[in-house]
Amino acid sequence: MKHTITGHTGLICLLGSPCAHSISPMMHNAAFEALDLDYRYLAFDVNEETLPAAVDGLKAMNARGFNLTMPDKNRMVSLCDQLSSAARLIGAVNTVVNDNGVLTGHNTDGAGYMQSVKDAGFQISGEKMTLLGAGGAATAILVQAALDGVREISVFLRPSSRFYDRARETAEALRKKTGCIISLCDFSDHDRLRSELSQSRILTNATSLGMAPSEDACPIPDASFLPDGLIVSDIIYNPKETRLLSMARAKGLPAFNGSYMLLYQGAEAFRLWTGKEMPVALIKNMFFS
Amino acid sequence: MKHTITGHTGLICLLGSPCAHSISPMMHNAAFEALDLDYRYLAFDVNEETLPAAVDGLKAMNARGFNLTMPDKNRMVSLCDQLSSAARLIGAVNTVVNDNGVLTGHNTDGAGYMQSVKDAGFQISGEKMTLLGAGGAATAILVQAALDGVREISVFLRPSSRFYDRARETAEALRKKTGCIISLCDFSDHDRLRSELSQSRILTNATSLGMAPSEDACPIPDASFLPDGLIVSDIIYNPKETRLLSMARAKGLPAFNGSYMLLYQGAEAFRLWTGKEMPVALIKNMFFS
Repeated sequence: MKHTITGHTGLICLLGSPCAHSISPMMHNAAFEALDLDYRYLAFDVNEETLPAAVDGLKAMNARGFNLTMPDKNRMVSLCDQLSSAARLIGAVNTVVNDNGVLTGHNTDGAGYMQSVKDAGFQISGEKMTLLGAGGAATAILVQAALDGVREISVFLRPSSRFYDRARETAEALRKKTGCIISLCDFSDHDRLRSELSQSRILTNATSLGMAPSEDACPIPDASFLPDGLIVSDIIYNPKETRLLSMARAKGLPAFNGSYMLLYQGAEAFRLWTGKEMPVALIKNMFFS
Repeated sequence: MKHTITGHTGLICLLGSPCAHSISPMMHNAAFEALDLDYRYLAFDVNEETLPAAVDGLKAMNARGFNLTMPDKNRMVSLCDQLSSAARLIGAVNTVVNDNGVLTGHNTDGAGYMQSVKDAGFQISGEKMTLLGAGGAATAILVQAALDGVREISVFLRPSSRFYDRARETAEALRKKTGCIISLCDFSDHDRLRSELSQSRILTNATSLGMAPSEDACPIPDASFLPDGLIVSDIIYNPKETRLLSMARAKGLPAFNGSYMLLYQGAEAFRLWTGKEMPVALIKNMFFS
């Protein structure tokens, strides 16, 4: 037997609730096997209440690291010994590296999105982005896009959103740190949406509008909002083609969904834990085709 | 891929320090695979100091259970919610079953030894045993042998042993609970050793005398101490044949080492976690031949 588990095999895992249906165990174990790395990746149903005990336990067991998914990403911030710039600005951790008891929190969700843009063949540094939403994924993208040199970002959210104050604080911190011009815009202001999109290189839907089982929903009113030359992206991957993406493709615009954001957030976490590049061509072929 | 790890895969593990060279991960993972059980067994280097955090973490992660090895077996007693009779009498836990946060401590070391006697073709219920040693493994055997109906057990240890008081207490508790006649004898009293052995059905060496790298050591002075008809057993499995066992075999006495004690303590733990019988023929063939 090749790749047998022994007493030397290390643990890396996912904590969240629910998390049993995550693709991460398959993705990371296939990558460990391909690179002959002696780790196994499991998923554990851990909520915000049980998170501190699970984290202390993983430290005691000297696990190499772990991922966090809902609802544990925000709570993890205060349990880390140190944070990456992105994790601090986002206020959420999706990846922890354990260096012999010192936990460093990272957030690879935004980096995963930015890499999926590159993977689709585009370069958006110095460009303008219109970003829909201000939840966890939207914040991760906002922060990483600003850190990666996107020039201007117009964020659409409802003024009544529970995320509004956080969005304003994040925007202010990013302006100071990166010089990125960030505007918060009212999601119901369609004239503003049309105007911002007309000046943008890329549209990023980071709301859940259009996600299964509400596949009829669409974050923009109609196709006339999408100008020529706009790149249209959706962080949703179920369905593979949201109404937004099919509308864009019908107009001949480049469009891609969120599945490679998922792949690349994992690839970046993999690199942080192992120091190796995930064999993404193999992983795409196995789990994303 | 058959038996791929998914988000549903459960964790069972070994805690100890050191434990990286344990055979348990190979043994249990092969058994899980053979029976198509969705668990993985890993080993984590956890000492007495880090044990409480690891145990709380495994509870938070809802691991199905775990094994303990040195130096964690005694410390584990106070971390369990309930104990089996054997674990309470032995004062040590080598197996924990987690029923949704309720931890039950067991000790399968003695049961493993008793099953290895049966496996060798012998039935010692109602018989007399001479037991050498009073450490952790010896105590586990003493307790299980008494619980399983061995009639009389003469335990040889040094009066200066740090285990002497514990041995006296264990003997007293067992006498009350089982009616087994237990005598503590001075290891240096060779006349007594000869006399007890002449009345015994089985000799059990549970000291480390003869274990690699001190393979020249032997717990009995010479072969004349071994009467006809005595079963001679050693809990040592490295070397496979200790001087004691080779001396017994040279006299034509039945003799066996500790490797099946190791197998059967695992098989009993496996049954406690999964409710299934370990496929011992397969496991013997893979790891004990």
